[in-house]
Amino acid sequence: MANSIYTDLAMESRELNPDIKGVTEQTEETEGYAVSRIKIETDEAARKLEKPMGLYVTLDAPALASRPLPLFEEVSKALAEEIAHMAGSLPDRATVLVVGLGNRAITPDSLGPRVAERIYVTRHINEYMPEALPRPVRSVCSVAPGVLGVTGVETMEIVRGVTEHIKPDLIIAIDALASRRAARISTTIQLTDTGISPGSGVGNTRKGLNSQAFGVPVIAIGVPMVVHAATISQEVISLIADKTGLHGDEEKLRDLAAQVISESLGPLVVTPKDIDAIAEDMSRVIADAINLALFKTDYEDVRMLIA
Amino acid sequence: MANSIYTDLAMESRELNPDIKGVTEQTEETEGYAVSRIKIETDEAARKLEKPMGLYVTLDAPALASRPLPLFEEVSKALAEEIAHMAGSLPDRATVLVVGLGNRAITPDSLGPRVAERIYVTRHINEYMPEALPRPVRSVCSVAPGVLGVTGVETMEIVRGVTEHIKPDLIIAIDALASRRAARISTTIQLTDTGISPGSGVGNTRKGLNSQAFGVPVIAIGVPMVVHAATISQEVISLIADKTGLHGDEEKLRDLAAQVISESLGPLVVTPKDIDAIAEDMSRVIADAINLALFKTDYEDVRMLIA
Amino acid sequence: MANSIYTDLAMESRELNPDIKGVTEQTEETEGYAVSRIKIETDEAARKLEKPMGLYVTLDAPALASRPLPLFEEVSKALAEEIAHMAGSLPDRATVLVVGLGNRAITPDSLGPRVAERIYVTRHINEYMPEALPRPVRSVCSVAPGVLGVTGVETMEIVRGVTEHIKPDLIIAIDALASRRAARISTTIQLTDTGISPGSGVGNTRKGLNSQAFGVPVIAIGVPMVVHAATISQEVISLIADKTGLHGDEEKLRDLAAQVISESLGPLVVTPKDIDAIAEDMSRVIADAINLALFKTDYEDVRMLIA
Amino acid sequence: MANSIYTDLAMESRELNPDIKGVTEQTEETEGYAVSRIKIETDEAARKLEKPMGLYVTLDAPALASRPLPLFEEVSKALAEEIAHMAGSLPDRATVLVVGLGNRAITPDSLGPRVAERIYVTRHINEYMPEALPRPVRSVCSVAPGVLGVTGVETMEIVRGVTEHIKPDLIIAIDALASRRAARISTTIQLTDTGISPGSGVGNTRKGLNSQAFGVPVIAIGVPMVVHAATISQEVISLIADKTGLHGDEEKLRDLAAQVISESLGPLVVTPKDIDAIAEDMSRVIADAINLALFKTDYEDVRMLIA
Repeated sequence: MANSIYTDLAMESRELNPDIKGVTEQTEETEGYAVSRIKIETDEAARKLEKPMGLYVTLDAPALASRPLPLFEEVSKALAEEIAHMAGSLPDRATVLVVGLGNRAITPDSLGPRVAERIYVTRHINEYMPEALPRPVRSVCSVAPGVLGVTGVETMEIVRGVTEHIKPDLIIAIDALASRRAARISTTIQLTDTGISPGSGVGNTRKGLNSQAFGVPVIAIGVPMVVHAATISQEVISLIADKTGLHGDEEKLRDLAAQVISESLGPLVVTPKDIDAIAEDMSRVIADAINLALFKTDYEDVRMLIA
Repeated sequence: MANSIYTDLAMESRELNPDIKGVTEQTEETEGYAVSRIKIETDEAARKLEKPMGLYVTLDAPALASRPLPLFEEVSKALAEEIAHMAGSLPDRATVLVVGLGNRAITPDSLGPRVAERIYVTRHINEYMPEALPRPVRSVCSVAPGVLGVTGVETMEIVRGVTEHIKPDLIIAIDALASRRAARISTTIQLTDTGISPGSGVGNTRKGLNSQAFGVPVIAIGVPMVVHAATISQEVISLIADKTGLHGDEEKLRDLAAQVISESLGPLVVTPKDIDAIAEDMSRVIADAINLALFKTDYEDVRMLIA
Repeated sequence: MANSIYTDLAMESRELNPDIKGVTEQTEETEGYAVSRIKIETDEAARKLEKPMGLYVTLDAPALASRPLPLFEEVSKALAEEIAHMAGSLPDRATVLVVGLGNRAITPDSLGPRVAERIYVTRHINEYMPEALPRPVRSVCSVAPGVLGVTGVETMEIVRGVTEHIKPDLIIAIDALASRRAARISTTIQLTDTGISPGSGVGNTRKGLNSQAFGVPVIAIGVPMVVHAATISQEVISLIADKTGLHGDEEKLRDLAAQVISESLGPLVVTPKDIDAIAEDMSRVIADAINLALFKTDYEDVRMLIA
Repeated sequence: MANSIYTDLAMESRELNPDIKGVTEQTEETEGYAVSRIKIETDEAARKLEKPMGLYVTLDAPALASRPLPLFEEVSKALAEEIAHMAGSLPDRATVLVVGLGNRAITPDSLGPRVAERIYVTRHINEYMPEALPRPVRSVCSVAPGVLGVTGVETMEIVRGVTEHIKPDLIIAIDALASRRAARISTTIQLTDTGISPGSGVGNTRKGLNSQAFGVPVIAIGVPMVVHAATISQEVISLIADKTGLHGDEEKLRDLAAQVISESLGPLVVTPKDIDAIAEDMSRVIADAINLALFKTDYEDVRMLIA
């Protein structure tokens, strides 16, 4: 039972549970990054993997860790294609709402609001000054609703309030994720048609941001920005048990680790020291991808007007 | 006709139009600051002053310009009393929504979002973990809806969406203002029961954030953070005309000034060079005042829990 | 006597004093921007223009005001060429010190520190891990010494302390400037071999950052970020006097303006409202230009390693 | 041999080596915090503890983790007393240089520069406008020299350059530390008369910031802001070995852990998620303490003038 290891990535849930039925998986490798597509097809698989049924596309680019500029651009383009594909045949005049989840003031949690700031918004231009653009473009708007601890309002209440007024045809939500492997921080991007559940703090009444709840397709994009300290210690123990003859004691070790961790490391996160720069870079990669995916051939015209 | 001089302050509209009927006015001076109360009582006065009918309380503390710490605290307390008085007999269990208007990324326009960040929010604590506080406290929540140019959504649409979900009994809105006198930047605070109209940019279809539109009392708090460059040049010309025998030419001068200005200075603002520090200070003064006014005797307990 | 109008730009001093001898001037126009070269060749001209003898190159790109991305890149490249030309035949193994003057916490004064942060520094790589680069590159280092009011130390004392230790062959100093025309804010870049004098505040004992004082060539790069409010009002009066028959009264007007201004507008600056974004953009343009000029064909290799 | 566990705290070195001779230790507990004084008195003890000979005062306030405002103030005052005591009988007209070490752009490393910004600097006031204060005050200046990777210049070269010009009688250096226990992040403050050695990156030629090197007393103040991920995993293993019968295997486990860690976790740090807020709070606590310690009865006058 590896379920006590927390991960937001379907790919990692799958790694921990490789033999479960009801899951299809397919991976393409290109130079610089790999794209894997995991489809959770049955309720039972969803329950076991602790992830809703649906499609999870993961871009994995380990070389992003050293922050090479050309790879940023390449990954942006690849991500743009995946977003466009997942969005399907959206009408030209569709309205798209981008929702940047998380807390701008907490760096490892700031990915969503940072992306939201960089989206080329056009809904008001179409409405109030359409002549500013050579032709009508897709209506895009972008909000960062904040987090419960800062606003006192459920994130979903705010999002629901906004969607009732602007009636989007598609929602794209961005959030920082937790993975179980430190190496995936800032090098992996997950895209899913199952939406997203913001935070996991006070109370449990909050509902997800997903197509069932909102009645329109919801694409969620996330990047691991932290590993919970508890998880990383467990990873160390697993690796040790693998390499020693202590396998009989692994469970004992794990129980002890769990106890030690809950006593002393509970709320800590593991994060690279330069998380500020990473959050900036990755928000740029994702915002570029969304802008490219939504505006396609209008991209340059919109960019000129907005950026 | 002084109407071409733009000001958000009722006190300044009044100065420019001292002889209009339907306005009552009263001023108290204390050491350190003055409080003036202007009541616009007739439609005609409202039309002439270009301000809605209602009460405008202005705290004027010129000494704030040199940023003395004790005066900050004193002004906060005085403002707290005015807010409490204007809010009237709000039930203990009332829900209050604080709305920080403006653009966080543009310093002279960042007052509202900065205040919103500093509000002690309690609505979620009352709802999800009431045991964290020794007794129930007022439910306060706080949002910064962003601006049209960044979100693509009318500010009022977002605020309306939020209020429909949380049904506040009182709304307090904060916004940066423009005055016609540079000396009032950061030294004057206006409080009004007439609400606020955010921005004045694209289109004119946006509606105000006021009690008529939202069905609950709306208190607006504002501080001048800029003078439009056009206004400041006009002020110079006025002063010159006052001091010369050129009075006959004043109108001619003014017309010329208007022309020169619209050609070359249009969108510029005049602001103190240390506007970053000023925005930080004044957001603290106002947030403290709101927190004090809303939590009263619970202030210290809430502060301990939240800050 | 136009000397009461303050400007850091030699080009503007020249405009105000077009008939002075001892100045040569030459302008090239290309699409998007103009380059003018002013050489102040005599002591008398220097005294009258209130600028030291030497070469002043000004890039003027009014279209930068609307922030078009391709023009940023073009101006960066043009500026890189001017820097390289002014630096002359620097040995390959020369050490270059970039000094970002100004106060990071005051947006209109933050250009220098922002540029300093973006410089690709290599001095320590050459010294401690030369193997990280395929071949030796120029040794570049970069400091932001802060301002007197924040450090309590004369900027020049700090710069002198640093230069005594690293013994640079060339110093490049960056500072925010004041111009007399609002339209030049963020659209004009001045490059000069006469160095720079930081600030003009407390005391007058501070010495300049120039080749006489430091014994090596000093290139100063500046961009107007503000117009003093006093200047802008004078500009309005000048324009008015030009257009009216009030010319006889111009001096009278100007005296009055000076009085009015010193009473009420003294320390204020005029600045575009989006100065935060402008400071970010222009620091990028200038840092890119310096990086290009210093690393030339090594630019891409260094960028990969550093950025 | 616990030496592979990295810590900047003498108190933790001592905990790991409780039986070493040549160390005296004394602890006082008050409500809210404890103060321990460790004196390393012999070369041998210094070598074994991997800390220079001298006095280490540690304030330990576990309750700071929940950020209670009154405790901040109390700890500031206690720290001020310790600083004043360690500084000894400094002449009234002495010059004090505060040096904020670290990288402002990396949150867990930003403590030093944040403190430097908050110091009340007076050296230039004494020099250029002594009449601004009712009586002469101590001359304080404050610099944040940046880090090698950003400036290309050894931190110590910059500090040396500055000190040669301003000739301080006392240096106070502030830096973020690493501890071996997550619980000490932001709750422990170490004060030592042995100075500080910034960073531990490229090369090993850099010398310390200490009284031997600079010829004047150097007080170093540090707060743990991170635990290296490697350390935290080792801590988990130690605790496990303690609680199991696996003690015979502890060394084997530790070797494996070291291997696993160097492969996968090397450069990561463990940090609380709200490190941004913590860095802000603790920089305020330390700067207040330094300001109090240096200005004593002049504190309020200086604060009025400077803050």
